[in-house]
Amino acid sequence: MRGAVIHAPRDIRFDTLEDPKIVHPTDAIIRTAVTCVCGSDLWPYRGVEPTGEPHPMGHEYVGFVEEVGGEVTAVRPGQFVVGSFATSDNTCVNCRNGFPSNCLHRAFMSTCQAEYIRIPNAQGTLVATDDVPGEELWPSLLAVSDVMGTGWWAADAAEVRPGSTAVVVGDGAVGLCAVIAAKERGAGRIIVMSRHEPRQRLARAFGATDIVTERGDEGVARIKDLTDGIGADSVLECVGTAQAMRQALRSARPGGDVGFVGVPHGVAVDGQELFFSHVGLRGGPAPVRRYLPDLIDRVLSGRIAPGRVFDLALPLDQVAEGYLAMDERRAIKTLLRP
Amino acid sequence: MRGAVIHAPRDIRFDTLEDPKIVHPTDAIIRTAVTCVCGSDLWPYRGVEPTGEPHPMGHEYVGFVEEVGGEVTAVRPGQFVVGSFATSDNTCVNCRNGFPSNCLHRAFMSTCQAEYIRIPNAQGTLVATDDVPGEELWPSLLAVSDVMGTGWWAADAAEVRPGSTAVVVGDGAVGLCAVIAAKERGAGRIIVMSRHEPRQRLARAFGATDIVTERGDEGVARIKDLTDGIGADSVLECVGTAQAMRQALRSARPGGDVGFVGVPHGVAVDGQELFFSHVGLRGGPAPVRRYLPDLIDRVLSGRIAPGRVFDLALPLDQVAEGYLAMDERRAIKTLLRP
Repeated sequence: MRGAVIHAPRDIRFDTLEDPKIVHPTDAIIRTAVTCVCGSDLWPYRGVEPTGEPHPMGHEYVGFVEEVGGEVTAVRPGQFVVGSFATSDNTCVNCRNGFPSNCLHRAFMSTCQAEYIRIPNAQGTLVATDDVPGEELWPSLLAVSDVMGTGWWAADAAEVRPGSTAVVVGDGAVGLCAVIAAKERGAGRIIVMSRHEPRQRLARAFGATDIVTERGDEGVARIKDLTDGIGADSVLECVGTAQAMRQALRSARPGGDVGFVGVPHGVAVDGQELFFSHVGLRGGPAPVRRYLPDLIDRVLSGRIAPGRVFDLALPLDQVAEGYLAMDERRAIKTLLRP
Repeated sequence: MRGAVIHAPRDIRFDTLEDPKIVHPTDAIIRTAVTCVCGSDLWPYRGVEPTGEPHPMGHEYVGFVEEVGGEVTAVRPGQFVVGSFATSDNTCVNCRNGFPSNCLHRAFMSTCQAEYIRIPNAQGTLVATDDVPGEELWPSLLAVSDVMGTGWWAADAAEVRPGSTAVVVGDGAVGLCAVIAAKERGAGRIIVMSRHEPRQRLARAFGATDIVTERGDEGVARIKDLTDGIGADSVLECVGTAQAMRQALRSARPGGDVGFVGVPHGVAVDGQELFFSHVGLRGGPAPVRRYLPDLIDRVLSGRIAPGRVFDLALPLDQVAEGYLAMDERRAIKTLLRP
């Protein structure tokens, strides 16, 4: 089969790879329906994280079950399945506590920009749809496997409640999905920090009520202006930089909540500042598996369409262009079709 | 009147001071029933925080109303009242959101180791008991004004629930009150990190089920041993040092909660470590006013006796010895009687 391999920063190739095989009886092999490029894939692409030896890329997927290991009974060949970027057995204590992305047997997916994918912990990880959904729904179901699940987690961790005021920091695919999540959870006001006109448009389509273009202290001041001077009930931090985290913490009202879902790079939180703010802080890799049944339902019923974050669709063999377009901000997120 | 004044590190004097007067129509003057020395008073006493010009000390109090300003109708002269170390109008948006210790008109008390005290925001801050409680209850009601309220907040912020496992980091008066709070909130297991035998005894009397004497990585390993290898549901950080915070964060299970109530000194939380732990973190000055009616009831009904943390009682004029005994760890907490 063929799939994306990173050889060095900015050097993504569509290489011939060995076909994946069942390694453990808990594995499944799926044929990729659609996959995509994640904002976090740009960290190694840009050389911010070391790339090391050439290795496959990609952790988002939906597909058709090809083969299952002897212990996998939850899905069967031919079914259309949605999974998570973090696999989980869905039975361990951390899974039972609601944190499958901290499963004791967790494996992070990393070979999904390819024609076929081996899914460890398939029994706990994969959720099959009743029927094969129409192709027009595949992008939204793909989004559920990561960015939509992560946006939902941001809203969950930030305790977005009916009627509350939410601020979304970051207008990437996760931030935009966080807007959907805040809207679905009933937020009365959704303020998005964004400077990019096409993303602002999509944010408004997803339910944003206000756009703030200022950043840093000015951005925080603007949020305070919009929230009776005290800040927002919930802030959804969807970037992962020190600046974004500072902005998020200072945009929350006393006793408000910040959910942070961008992998932090160079972030340290000052204990005394957090203390006097009374703000609650929770983040981490999204427990997507917990949300899958609900989010799949919302997509299939047409309530949400997170697939709209894909503003570029390419054949899988043009994966290199898919990265470049995102790197140059020509695309929010690139869909790849095998 | 007379009261405690800090002149320099380790120089506490019982000086003659001006009698407090009503300054604002929202003030009340109370005659102190009992007051005490707080662990946080030791920061300036030890010179860790600058002392500056000589100034009065103390922020914990119960007493009898002497006089009220024109806008104070909630309490009247002669009543026995309990307050909070942070005053609040109990009407502003932060108060309504449950964070009176972040009241827009908050004033931190700082003159309470004295015979009379001026209470700003008296209308929102003071809660009167129906009758004058017996003197044997005064120490526990005094504890409610700070350490018991703060212990309760630690358990609240750490989401202690019926049946959950709680770890208390710190065996000072707040840590011991946090044990009471965890017990009252139904924790199934309460593990206290303590090396001091008399404090361990009191912790057990308050409901601790396990004592861990190890610290740092060894302490964390011991907590994991006691919690199926994953850590505790809730960790109550009642110290405020970098070591205590690290220990707290690492003692919580994935997706668990840390409530931190010791004023942080030199604490910075690593964003990436917090991220991958999935741990929720919330702290701050305790919203004591929110808890006052409930905690006063628990004391008056005999359910809790947080006054047991006072293991030294002195006449107010011996306040200097009260500080010294706590500094030398001869006392957990010193009660002062005018």
